[in-house]
Amino acid sequence: MHFASDNAGPAHPAIMDALAKANTGYAPPYGTDPIMDEVRAQIREIFEAPEAAVYLVATGTAANSLALATLCQPFETVFCAPVAHIHEDECNAPEFYTGGAKLTLVGDADKMTPEALRASIEAEESRGVHGPQRGPVSITQVTERGTVYSVEELTALCDVAKGFGLPVHLDGARFANALVALGCTPAEMTWKAGVDAVSFGGTKNGCVGVEAVIFFDPAKAWEFELRRKRGAHLFSKHRYLSAQMNAYLKDDLWLQSARQANANCARLAEGLRAAGVTFTYPPQANTVFCTFPRAIHKRLFEAGAAYNVWSGSLDGADPDEPLEARFVCDWSISAAEIDRFVGLFKV
Amino acid sequence: MHFASDNAGPAHPAIMDALAKANTGYAPPYGTDPIMDEVRAQIREIFEAPEAAVYLVATGTAANSLALATLCQPFETVFCAPVAHIHEDECNAPEFYTGGAKLTLVGDADKMTPEALRASIEAEESRGVHGPQRGPVSITQVTERGTVYSVEELTALCDVAKGFGLPVHLDGARFANALVALGCTPAEMTWKAGVDAVSFGGTKNGCVGVEAVIFFDPAKAWEFELRRKRGAHLFSKHRYLSAQMNAYLKDDLWLQSARQANANCARLAEGLRAAGVTFTYPPQANTVFCTFPRAIHKRLFEAGAAYNVWSGSLDGADPDEPLEARFVCDWSISAAEIDRFVGLFKV
Amino acid sequence: MHFASDNAGPAHPAIMDALAKANTGYAPPYGTDPIMDEVRAQIREIFEAPEAAVYLVATGTAANSLALATLCQPFETVFCAPVAHIHEDECNAPEFYTGGAKLTLVGDADKMTPEALRASIEAEESRGVHGPQRGPVSITQVTERGTVYSVEELTALCDVAKGFGLPVHLDGARFANALVALGCTPAEMTWKAGVDAVSFGGTKNGCVGVEAVIFFDPAKAWEFELRRKRGAHLFSKHRYLSAQMNAYLKDDLWLQSARQANANCARLAEGLRAAGVTFTYPPQANTVFCTFPRAIHKRLFEAGAAYNVWSGSLDGADPDEPLEARFVCDWSISAAEIDRFVGLFKV
Amino acid sequence: MHFASDNAGPAHPAIMDALAKANTGYAPPYGTDPIMDEVRAQIREIFEAPEAAVYLVATGTAANSLALATLCQPFETVFCAPVAHIHEDECNAPEFYTGGAKLTLVGDADKMTPEALRASIEAEESRGVHGPQRGPVSITQVTERGTVYSVEELTALCDVAKGFGLPVHLDGARFANALVALGCTPAEMTWKAGVDAVSFGGTKNGCVGVEAVIFFDPAKAWEFELRRKRGAHLFSKHRYLSAQMNAYLKDDLWLQSARQANANCARLAEGLRAAGVTFTYPPQANTVFCTFPRAIHKRLFEAGAAYNVWSGSLDGADPDEPLEARFVCDWSISAAEIDRFVGLFKV
Repeated sequence: MHFASDNAGPAHPAIMDALAKANTGYAPPYGTDPIMDEVRAQIREIFEAPEAAVYLVATGTAANSLALATLCQPFETVFCAPVAHIHEDECNAPEFYTGGAKLTLVGDADKMTPEALRASIEAEESRGVHGPQRGPVSITQVTERGTVYSVEELTALCDVAKGFGLPVHLDGARFANALVALGCTPAEMTWKAGVDAVSFGGTKNGCVGVEAVIFFDPAKAWEFELRRKRGAHLFSKHRYLSAQMNAYLKDDLWLQSARQANANCARLAEGLRAAGVTFTYPPQANTVFCTFPRAIHKRLFEAGAAYNVWSGSLDGADPDEPLEARFVCDWSISAAEIDRFVGLFKV
Repeated sequence: MHFASDNAGPAHPAIMDALAKANTGYAPPYGTDPIMDEVRAQIREIFEAPEAAVYLVATGTAANSLALATLCQPFETVFCAPVAHIHEDECNAPEFYTGGAKLTLVGDADKMTPEALRASIEAEESRGVHGPQRGPVSITQVTERGTVYSVEELTALCDVAKGFGLPVHLDGARFANALVALGCTPAEMTWKAGVDAVSFGGTKNGCVGVEAVIFFDPAKAWEFELRRKRGAHLFSKHRYLSAQMNAYLKDDLWLQSARQANANCARLAEGLRAAGVTFTYPPQANTVFCTFPRAIHKRLFEAGAAYNVWSGSLDGADPDEPLEARFVCDWSISAAEIDRFVGLFKV
Repeated sequence: MHFASDNAGPAHPAIMDALAKANTGYAPPYGTDPIMDEVRAQIREIFEAPEAAVYLVATGTAANSLALATLCQPFETVFCAPVAHIHEDECNAPEFYTGGAKLTLVGDADKMTPEALRASIEAEESRGVHGPQRGPVSITQVTERGTVYSVEELTALCDVAKGFGLPVHLDGARFANALVALGCTPAEMTWKAGVDAVSFGGTKNGCVGVEAVIFFDPAKAWEFELRRKRGAHLFSKHRYLSAQMNAYLKDDLWLQSARQANANCARLAEGLRAAGVTFTYPPQANTVFCTFPRAIHKRLFEAGAAYNVWSGSLDGADPDEPLEARFVCDWSISAAEIDRFVGLFKV
Repeated sequence: MHFASDNAGPAHPAIMDALAKANTGYAPPYGTDPIMDEVRAQIREIFEAPEAAVYLVATGTAANSLALATLCQPFETVFCAPVAHIHEDECNAPEFYTGGAKLTLVGDADKMTPEALRASIEAEESRGVHGPQRGPVSITQVTERGTVYSVEELTALCDVAKGFGLPVHLDGARFANALVALGCTPAEMTWKAGVDAVSFGGTKNGCVGVEAVIFFDPAKAWEFELRRKRGAHLFSKHRYLSAQMNAYLKDDLWLQSARQANANCARLAEGLRAAGVTFTYPPQANTVFCTFPRAIHKRLFEAGAAYNVWSGSLDGADPDEPLEARFVCDWSISAAEIDRFVGLFKV
């Protein structure tokens, strides 16, 4: 009954097989391995982007920080949602990698709206050299609250950014979960909507630890390579990153894993709905946010469930006080386990 | 006939087995996995350092940069050999992670001498606030030229550093190769000699990608954790780092691999000596530097050998001009392959 | 009719005299001049702080950024009001000098409240290594909206900070204006309330360009000196900074200038009140924020007035639409000029 | 008898007059003052560079660091002489402002030679992403040893840089002293020779504290402005920087001051030569490096002389041991004082 995060489950067997298979003989280091050539071709094909620059790193924070540092000058500010991972969960990594850029928090919701984004961008306009300069817009898809921007919403945000000449970064740590939720193509969810650079996650969706960074315009490719090396994120035995991403993209494994994770989440959400919880965000991908009484939380933990109490505290006298929970489903959790968990809600 | 680097060979099967074995069920993320508890205990035991703080990262540059950033203020300078990896091969990562500290190059050889170190440290003494302040000493063991500091040499360098109150970092990307070459204990090669922090390499000696950072005084442990996260080097699925290091240290695999690599190198060196090359550095671990005529280089490459021409250029008319080569042996290369390679020297 | 800023008026003649008087013979450079010894003694006496570390720089942004960099680690966040100068008007200088720390915006008003500060600090508590760590609290006194924290308000904010073990910085670019408005002592407005470090402004109150940075605990004095030098803010001909601050503090010039500026502002505010403007913040020091119809704005600018339209735009059809203005008074503006300006409000 | 530095003497009376004259009425802040318009025009005319971007800061370290940060990416290295001020005397300010670029020390003399520069640049060529990338060349004119590059020497260095596509920065803290020593035009000593950006010093040559930064190609002007503000080097009361530079350039004051300083130095050098000292560098501008016996050093200090013992130590038994001295002459020292000082050499 593990719903703590999609980074706590095992890697998909196909990923492990690929690692084992890659472990034969010599391979040129530092990203020059032949499997990386395959990966580059795969991503270019999947994204319908034959010119795209494609790189691999091992963590989502590295992907985000390096992508943003390549798009953002140190005297600029990045526009993002207040709950963005880059703001709340990266211990100032974006500020570190950009050399001290700022993050401007747009609106107060899980998603940025075009209106809020426009207002935030315009608010930086009048101070000349004194304020931070306008920098990239970073969109998290799936959002940190488990919701998914529609292609129309993404396009509207990108349109605002483009109106000011600002580049757009997509934090796609859960790219696949969003994609299968929307049923669109990778191109539609990215460059066709106006996205310039993508952190394309593998780790949370069945890999050991690999994320791609994709620039649809390769003009800054070499700068990215230097920033990756300087950030100590260039693997010498790079083939083991390549092998993961190669297997992840092969035979639609990435889509299958995401579909399974989302289906697991839907099953969980259905059970929770029946159990009478209150959803605080609509569960649109593989994450549920909801509230239910403290007493039930205690019962779940006593039964061995693993998840995060998101707001409020387990300590407290009132057994009926509602506390918010976050449940994340990965591909590996079984229907039986979900059902057993949901069953705990009924006395 | 791959002698290009010890990062081009495959990982040891035991490492791959450990990865596969770790891939079951759920594991708490971000370094809280139970295997990491084992790793911590292993390293503390091996180093006879029950208080040591132990962390894992995936690249040697990350280990070095994060260790140095924890020991060094941005207005200080790091003392190191001119050929140090941190100076020549990390694209300014130490400068990045320290927030702009300087590197002071000590002497002009593969190894720092106590005299040269003292002279460099003293040279920074008289400028007060104007010059960089004295910061940590970083020693590379095995050196970048394949030579090994004796315990006495290490101790003498540390004594100089300690005389000025400066901390000592050991870049041990090839720690095991040095250790088995010296036949001493890990404690003797580190804290007993005066070393404060170690980058303890696994990647070049049979792992997929894992390095430990060890602080014998845990006072700055939390700061290191924050710097690691801020640097985007904290793995969510950390168990796959732990599993590698765990297997690496188990049953002396790390020592066996290093012994094999060094033995392979000794066999190669013996063959080369017989073939009449000129050694530019004494081969003391798993790396050979030597010169021989351009014509032989060409013959080797034509036969499919892989290695680096270290100084001089293959292009050039004179077939007899000596060019320097670097050959690195890992654990995996076979005696037959070495012999075949050496055989190419004979017409 | 210049109300644009207190940095647009002339320096006080006594400051210029001091510069001229300092310009004789040789003086040791880099802060070792004898006048600096006097300044140090003056500030320690004025602040009743015989141990305080005292330094001079030439800009307020330098004072703030260097003070914060000395108090704040790069993986921490600074708590400040959303309108703080360090957030809105320093082009990411605090982020630059701290090496990439974050600024957390507390509340949504000109002043932080203890409740909002506590909530912001507590909100950073639960993420462990993932979120930014809690760093210093920075209070702007006079606020950027012309209001003044009472000693009780300052104490309450410092109490919250101290409860979490966090240091407190006071951005006192208009320190003197606040002090004379409150009628308290410098000690009461700073260390007795719980402030650890002060940016003590001179530039806006009659100097050419000088700010003191004061640390009541001198433990980090040497670090500050190194950061000042590394930031290129250590003057070689330092005596010209010292001379300004020396004259500024002599014979209560600083207090007289601030009293005059505040009195000028009171006269202006009284005239504006009579003219029927709407104050958007209570004018408590030397700055007025108020709204009045666009038509009057146009009339004022046509008559040669200089000030900032703070929100809204002069362009616009409706002559009656209220636009917000900011008026800042320095010591030099005459009563006659103020009266002439106020007279323009009456048709 | 002050020969410690040209930053210890007084400012020229004409500079002080200009400050006093500028101190009337209101002036727009932050570099928009009308005097700055004059300064810009003056510098463009003097340099025959009608498109040049011109900015003022208060310290030489700020000028150098900001100029280099504008020309250099954080993953690059700056080529400079080992005795360069940016390397030895700025407490890592260039590393700070560039975001962690490296400094590569070229050769081992006061001046870089084209051969040494070429060798240093070529040495960075073969490491791809691993080593620092080649960045700007920074030339110090007058050198830190009091010698002056000829126009031919400057041109030869710039030619090497241009051959690799690298920009050239001139640290002209003593620009005027070099210019009058060479008898060439500012254009000949800069852009005509191949220099792209200049730190044009005023402070050491009779100003209170002002340096210009000049970019002959204004493409990066706005970036420089943002970096200056972010570095906290944009003065609010900017007119006092403008007034200094304006007076400095008016009526050839800058050239007269430099001629006087160099003449003072020539008189000193002549006296020292007659006294039998050994010059360690040829005194070509306003600085002398020479050696003479410890006993004479002691006699000079006892008589109240101020200067730096550059190598060796006053402490020591042997009265005849030669110690190196550095003497710097500014415009203000009198012939009588020089003669009195030289007289002390004779028993």
